[in-house]
Amino acid sequence: MINIIVAGPRGKMGSEALRLIKQTENYHLVGCIDRKNEGMNVSDLEGLPNLDAPIFTDAEIAFQEAGADVLIDLTSPEAGYTHTRLALENGVRPVVGTSGFSDEQLTDIQRLTEQKELGAVIAPNFAVGAVLMMQFAKWAAKYFPDVEIIEKHHDQKLDAPSGTAVKTAKLIEQVRESKKQGHPEEKETLAGARGADEDGMKIHSVRLPGLIAHQEVIFGGTGQGLTIKHDSYHRQSFMSGVKLAVDQVQKVNAFVYGLENLLE
Amino acid sequence: MINIIVAGPRGKMGSEALRLIKQTENYHLVGCIDRKNEGMNVSDLEGLPNLDAPIFTDAEIAFQEAGADVLIDLTSPEAGYTHTRLALENGVRPVVGTSGFSDEQLTDIQRLTEQKELGAVIAPNFAVGAVLMMQFAKWAAKYFPDVEIIEKHHDQKLDAPSGTAVKTAKLIEQVRESKKQGHPEEKETLAGARGADEDGMKIHSVRLPGLIAHQEVIFGGTGQGLTIKHDSYHRQSFMSGVKLAVDQVQKVNAFVYGLENLLE
Amino acid sequence: MINIIVAGPRGKMGSEALRLIKQTENYHLVGCIDRKNEGMNVSDLEGLPNLDAPIFTDAEIAFQEAGADVLIDLTSPEAGYTHTRLALENGVRPVVGTSGFSDEQLTDIQRLTEQKELGAVIAPNFAVGAVLMMQFAKWAAKYFPDVEIIEKHHDQKLDAPSGTAVKTAKLIEQVRESKKQGHPEEKETLAGARGADEDGMKIHSVRLPGLIAHQEVIFGGTGQGLTIKHDSYHRQSFMSGVKLAVDQVQKVNAFVYGLENLLE
Amino acid sequence: MINIIVAGPRGKMGSEALRLIKQTENYHLVGCIDRKNEGMNVSDLEGLPNLDAPIFTDAEIAFQEAGADVLIDLTSPEAGYTHTRLALENGVRPVVGTSGFSDEQLTDIQRLTEQKELGAVIAPNFAVGAVLMMQFAKWAAKYFPDVEIIEKHHDQKLDAPSGTAVKTAKLIEQVRESKKQGHPEEKETLAGARGADEDGMKIHSVRLPGLIAHQEVIFGGTGQGLTIKHDSYHRQSFMSGVKLAVDQVQKVNAFVYGLENLLE
Repeated sequence: MINIIVAGPRGKMGSEALRLIKQTENYHLVGCIDRKNEGMNVSDLEGLPNLDAPIFTDAEIAFQEAGADVLIDLTSPEAGYTHTRLALENGVRPVVGTSGFSDEQLTDIQRLTEQKELGAVIAPNFAVGAVLMMQFAKWAAKYFPDVEIIEKHHDQKLDAPSGTAVKTAKLIEQVRESKKQGHPEEKETLAGARGADEDGMKIHSVRLPGLIAHQEVIFGGTGQGLTIKHDSYHRQSFMSGVKLAVDQVQKVNAFVYGLENLLE
Repeated sequence: MINIIVAGPRGKMGSEALRLIKQTENYHLVGCIDRKNEGMNVSDLEGLPNLDAPIFTDAEIAFQEAGADVLIDLTSPEAGYTHTRLALENGVRPVVGTSGFSDEQLTDIQRLTEQKELGAVIAPNFAVGAVLMMQFAKWAAKYFPDVEIIEKHHDQKLDAPSGTAVKTAKLIEQVRESKKQGHPEEKETLAGARGADEDGMKIHSVRLPGLIAHQEVIFGGTGQGLTIKHDSYHRQSFMSGVKLAVDQVQKVNAFVYGLENLLE
Repeated sequence: MINIIVAGPRGKMGSEALRLIKQTENYHLVGCIDRKNEGMNVSDLEGLPNLDAPIFTDAEIAFQEAGADVLIDLTSPEAGYTHTRLALENGVRPVVGTSGFSDEQLTDIQRLTEQKELGAVIAPNFAVGAVLMMQFAKWAAKYFPDVEIIEKHHDQKLDAPSGTAVKTAKLIEQVRESKKQGHPEEKETLAGARGADEDGMKIHSVRLPGLIAHQEVIFGGTGQGLTIKHDSYHRQSFMSGVKLAVDQVQKVNAFVYGLENLLE
Repeated sequence: MINIIVAGPRGKMGSEALRLIKQTENYHLVGCIDRKNEGMNVSDLEGLPNLDAPIFTDAEIAFQEAGADVLIDLTSPEAGYTHTRLALENGVRPVVGTSGFSDEQLTDIQRLTEQKELGAVIAPNFAVGAVLMMQFAKWAAKYFPDVEIIEKHHDQKLDAPSGTAVKTAKLIEQVRESKKQGHPEEKETLAGARGADEDGMKIHSVRLPGLIAHQEVIFGGTGQGLTIKHDSYHRQSFMSGVKLAVDQVQKVNAFVYGLENLLE
C-alpha cells in the first residue's frame, strides 16, 4: 500500500491523478492540498472520483498529519517547489511534473534528497510514450545521422516548433556530429518549404483543427527508413508515467530528473 | 490489337513502355523512333525486352510505314512536339508524357486533332495514383478548407517543394476561398517551422536518403482528420497511366490534356 | 435564419447539436423534444449550451407550435422514425442520423417527402471525412483492384471488423470484379495473419487502448501505393455533416439517403 | 585500411558488398571467392564495380595468399560455414549474413574465435533499421504491454506473417507477461479480422503489388500510442549493417551473434 497526497485535486491534471489512485489497487489517497476547501473531504467535491480523504490548505500540516509516503504534484513551478521542499523535510517522497524549476532549485532539491536519504522524481514530461520516442531517436541517430522531425498539433497552438520537437533535436545533437542535410545545392522555390533548421536537422510543424498532439521522427539511410511516432490523444497519457514514478520513487533513495532515467 | 510506335526506346521511360507492350496481350510493337540505330531491330538492342520491330531514325517514315495506331512518346518536350505533329498528320494517335508544351503548342495540337478527327492524350503525370490523390484532394477541400501538404523525396532532389505539391495546392485553391491557416497569432521560434505558404496552405518538404517520392495531403476538421497519401516506389508506376491513355486514345476523337480527364 | 428543433437535447449527440446551433450564426433553436422536462426551457438544463427555447415532450405539438424549418434527430431508430413522420406531416424538414430504418420505413419517408414536396436527409454516418474516404475508395478501386483495409479502434470495441470497414469493402465490390488477392499460393504460418476476406479483399482490425476510431484503405499497383485514411478523434466530427445536411435540406425538395449524395 | 575478401561477388548481395568497398575510403578489396572464374580478376567481370583483385575458387588459398583482414560472406549457410571456419583458421575475421547456422555450428565458430583470439560477426539481419526497430519494440513493450504488428510486403511473398514480424513478437514475449489483448468478449464477424495470435499479440500481414518490405509495431496505452516503423526500399539497406560489422569485427576479439549486439 502506498499512501499518497495529491496537490491541486481540482485541476485537470490533479483530478486525473485522483482517477489513477482510484483505479490502482495498492494506492491509497490520504489527503489533498488545495488552496481552498479547508476541512472538507475530497468526497464532498463535485466532479472528482469518490475518494475519502481530508483536504488541507496548509501543505506543511498535510505532510505532518496525513501519513503520506508520496506527494503527487502537477500544479505550477512555484507551488511545486514549495511543496517539494516541505514534502522532503517531512519524509514524504515527491513526484513532480514540471519543466519550470531553475538549476538552483534542482540543485537544492538534490541536496535535500541526499541529506534526507529520500527518493524524488521531477519530470518535465510524464508521457512514457513521448519519453521513449525521444530515447529511441537519440539511439537511432547514432546510426542514421539524416533525420527530420514532423510534429502535428491542433491549430490553437501558438508556438512552432513544439517544445518536444526541439528537445528531441537537442538530444539527437548529443550523439551525432553537426550535419547539413539535404542536397548541398537544394533550393526553396517557396520559402520555408524545407522547414526549420536545428543543427542541420529539419523540423516541420503542422497545425490543423482536429489534431491533438503528434510527433514523428523520421530517419533515412541508404535503401531504408526508420520512423518513430508518438500520438497523444488525451492528457490521461501522462498518468502511466506518474504511476511509474510513484512506484519507483519508493525504491530509489536518490534524486531523479527526467522520466527517461526510470526507463530501463 | 493495338499497333504501337515507341519513341526513345533506349531511355528509362521508353524501355519501361517496351516492357508494358511486352506484357500486354493486345499490344503490338510495330516500330521505334531512335536517334541512332537506323535499320536495326529492337531485338538487336541490349538490355531491352525481346521485341521484334524495326528502328527508324526518321519519325515521318516511321509513321508512314510502320502501320501504327498509337505513338507513345516519353522523351523531351522538343522531340515530343515534333513527333506529336507528325503522328497526327499521318493518322497516328499520340500518347505523350510531358509538362513542357507551351500554350501555343497545346492549342496547335488541339486544332490538329480536330482537323484530323483523331484522339490525343498529353499528360504531365502518368502515375494514376498521384493523379487520383490530386483529384481527391480537390474534392475534399470543399468540405475541409484546412489542409497541409507533406511531400517526401530522396535527398538528391534539388527543388522544394515538389512540382506535384505545388500543383496539388493550386488545384485546392480552385475550390476553397483563400484562408490563412493556423492560429492568427502563431509564432515561429525557429524560422521555417510552419513550412511554405501557398494561399494560406502550408507545404512541408522532407529530404532524406532512402526515400523515393511520397506525398501526403492532410485535411483537418473538428474532431477528425482525412489524409490522402501517394507513394511512388518505382518509375514503373507511370505505366498504368500510359496503358489507360493508350486504351482510351483509341476511343475518344478529341484532345485530352491531363490524365484526370480519363479518370471517371 | 434557419429555425431548428433538436430531439434528445440531453443525449451525447443531441447536446453536440445544440453546440453546433450555438456556434452557427444563422441557426436558431426554436425548441427541443425531450422525454421529460415538459414546460421547461433549454436554458434550465445543466451542462447544455445556454440557449433559450422551450422543451416539448409531445413531438407533434413541438412541430405545430415551435415554428421550425428543420428537425435534427440523432436519437434512436424508433423515436427517429416517429419524429421524421410527424415533422414531414407538419412541414418540417428532417435531418436524421441513423442506420436503423427498414426499407419499408425508408420507402414510406420517401413517399411522404414527395407528397409534401419537402426535403429530408437520412444518413447512417454524418462524419464527412469518413464518407469522403468511402467515396474516394470506391473511385480508386476502378484503377487499383488490389486493396486492403486496416481499421483501428480502442480495445473496448466488441465486433471486428467495424461497420465502416465492411461498408467500404461493399462499395469497392460495386466497381471492381471479384479478385482473390495476394500470391495464389500464399500460406499462413499463423492462422489469421492475412486478415478477414471480403470478396478477395483483406480487412485487418487493430484493437488497442488509447486508439479512438481510425481507418486506412490501402491500394497497391505496380511501383506505387495510394492510401486514404480517416481519423475520428471526437464525436464532434459528426457535426460538420449535420451542418451540411441542415443547409442542404432547405434547398432540395427530395428525399436524400446517405451524406455522400450531398457531396459534390 | 581494411583488406577484405568477398565471397560470391556475382550474387545480388555480394555485388552490393563490392559497391560498398568501392565507396568506402579505407576499404580495400584483396580478393574474391567464386565458384568459377579462377585466375581472373574482378575487373574482368561484367556488371560489377571496377575493382582490381584476384578471383579464387579455392577459399583456403584465398585466405592464405590474399592478405585479408576480413571476410564478407553473404552466400548460403553451407558455403558460409566452410568459409567462416577457413577464415578463422587463417587469421581472417568473418562477417557473415545468415540465419541458417545450427546451434552446433555456432558453438563451433565461437570456440574457434576464442582459440584464435579473433573477432567474428554472424548476423541474420544486416538492416540496421530493422534491428533497431526490434530493439525499440522490446524496450517499449516493458511499458506498453498492448501491441500489434502490421507488416506489409509485395504480393509475391508466399508466407505470412514475415520472419521479422514473428521475431519481433518473440522478442516482445521476453519482456512482457503473456496477455490476451482486445476486449475479452470481442467477436470476429468475418474470420481472421483480428489477425494472427502470438502470445496474445496480434500480427497482420498486408500483401499488395508495389509494396517492398515494411513493418509497423504499434503500442497502445491510456490516451496515447507509440509506433515504430521500418521501411526497406532496397537491398542496399543491408550494407550499412555490413559496414558496421566490418568496422567492429576489427575491434572485438570475440564472437558476436546478431547485429543488435554491436548497437550501443
